[in-house]
Amino acid sequence: MSPPYKLTYFDIMGLAEPIRLLLSYGNLDFEDCRVPKESWPNIKPNMPFGQIPVLEFNGKVYHQSIAISRYLAKQVKLVGKDDIEDMEIDAIVDVLMDFRSKVAKYHYDGDEAAKEAYAKTLFGEIVPYYLEKLDKQAKENGGYLVGGKLTWADLILVGSIDYMNFMAKKELLAGAPNLLKVKENVAAVPNVQKYLETRSNSHYVYECYITAATPAGQLPIFKVKGKVLHQSMAISRFLGTIQNLAGNTPMENWEIDAAVDTVTDLRL
Amino acid sequence: MSPPYKLTYFDIMGLAEPIRLLLSYGNLDFEDCRVPKESWPNIKPNMPFGQIPVLEFNGKVYHQSIAISRYLAKQVKLVGKDDIEDMEIDAIVDVLMDFRSKVAKYHYDGDEAAKEAYAKTLFGEIVPYYLEKLDKQAKENGGYLVGGKLTWADLILVGSIDYMNFMAKKELLAGAPNLLKVKENVAAVPNVQKYLETRSNSHYVYECYITAATPAGQLPIFKVKGKVLHQSMAISRFLGTIQNLAGNTPMENWEIDAAVDTVTDLRL
Repeated sequence: MSPPYKLTYFDIMGLAEPIRLLLSYGNLDFEDCRVPKESWPNIKPNMPFGQIPVLEFNGKVYHQSIAISRYLAKQVKLVGKDDIEDMEIDAIVDVLMDFRSKVAKYHYDGDEAAKEAYAKTLFGEIVPYYLEKLDKQAKENGGYLVGGKLTWADLILVGSIDYMNFMAKKELLAGAPNLLKVKENVAAVPNVQKYLETRSNSHYVYECYITAATPAGQLPIFKVKGKVLHQSMAISRFLGTIQNLAGNTPMENWEIDAAVDTVTDLRL
Repeated sequence: MSPPYKLTYFDIMGLAEPIRLLLSYGNLDFEDCRVPKESWPNIKPNMPFGQIPVLEFNGKVYHQSIAISRYLAKQVKLVGKDDIEDMEIDAIVDVLMDFRSKVAKYHYDGDEAAKEAYAKTLFGEIVPYYLEKLDKQAKENGGYLVGGKLTWADLILVGSIDYMNFMAKKELLAGAPNLLKVKENVAAVPNVQKYLETRSNSHYVYECYITAATPAGQLPIFKVKGKVLHQSMAISRFLGTIQNLAGNTPMENWEIDAAVDTVTDLRL
């Protein structure tokens, strides 16, 4: 049986990492579908507003990374103690998103001259401004962003900062001791620690179709490096091979194949 | 006694209009403080992350327009029926904010050549894409954006669209009959209707200090067109005059002043 949650995104941390962190924090089983860039044009038209990440469960596809994160935060009990605290969490999450988009503006600017000019403002003014304010808030809250305790705002920070560092080409939190403390506090949660230690850094990419958006007749299908594999047994054989579950000799493989075919015969 | 809510923003609809709509919908009394552009540099350093709108109540200042809106939506019961519907509302609100920021990118681009190039993508692709998707969703929900009933997502749309039209220099919803239906449905709510009919279109600007961020010794202060008025009686006389509550002749004014001074004597 497939896990209840199916997350679809590119094979990067990007906008999906806060969602992966929240799912891991709550020990919620999820399929971590990673779409190769070259397949994106085929998938895009089926996405709610042409964007990923999306989270699929109970046969429906949900979109917008922060909306998904807020939903999961409620399920794993990382929200505020009342409406006021929830507003404070929402505000700081929106601040983090504003901050991220200002860093992204730099990363994605294709005009080198404009990029260089913006870099001066970004690293001279914007980044120090945000870090000072955010660090102060983390200090006032004892190593958390809101309410003096772990909330999903902290997971959004930790889930966003690697991507922001990548876009900024520097360790943004280096001079922000209290934000580093937030990072430590999040990483110290056993479920999160386990996720951070075992998360895939490989770029072996596979693609999971969004079931709710796929005609039933086309399943199962498995895409790898842009190629579609069909036939469930052929796919299983391929996956067995790449995961070192195949035999060591052609003779061993024949034995395995024979056993599989016998099982198939029993089913038919 | 001053109203429980104090909203501070510029004297435009901009990012504060959804908040004004939500407050009006719930018939929540609020002070609608409008900061003149030239005073903004003095106020900015006291704002939580250097931005407005902020909403002040119970002696605290809250920031980020959407976080504030979500909070108010809970108070006036315009949220979803469960966590899933709340996520759907959040997602569509985030879509509207994405859409708005793409229109804003056009409006605020100072480089005429880049602006013209972007206009082609914006009006040829981006705007039609968003409108088609959003209109479809409004159709499926019978003239609302989520759940087939009025939610704060509808108020965010209505509260954002005038500013978006202004930035785009066109009526964006003109070809989107179901989104126009959303607008109609929102405007048909009596409290909202009353607000829309009576909202100030004048640009007579006054400034309300953020009490929580102002040294107590400096109050009352009243700023008008960039000038600070002090002395409560002098301010009252000024406000009386501009609101046609003064006398018609110097003799009548003397009589009013004499009565005011008698009242003041009684107080001292």
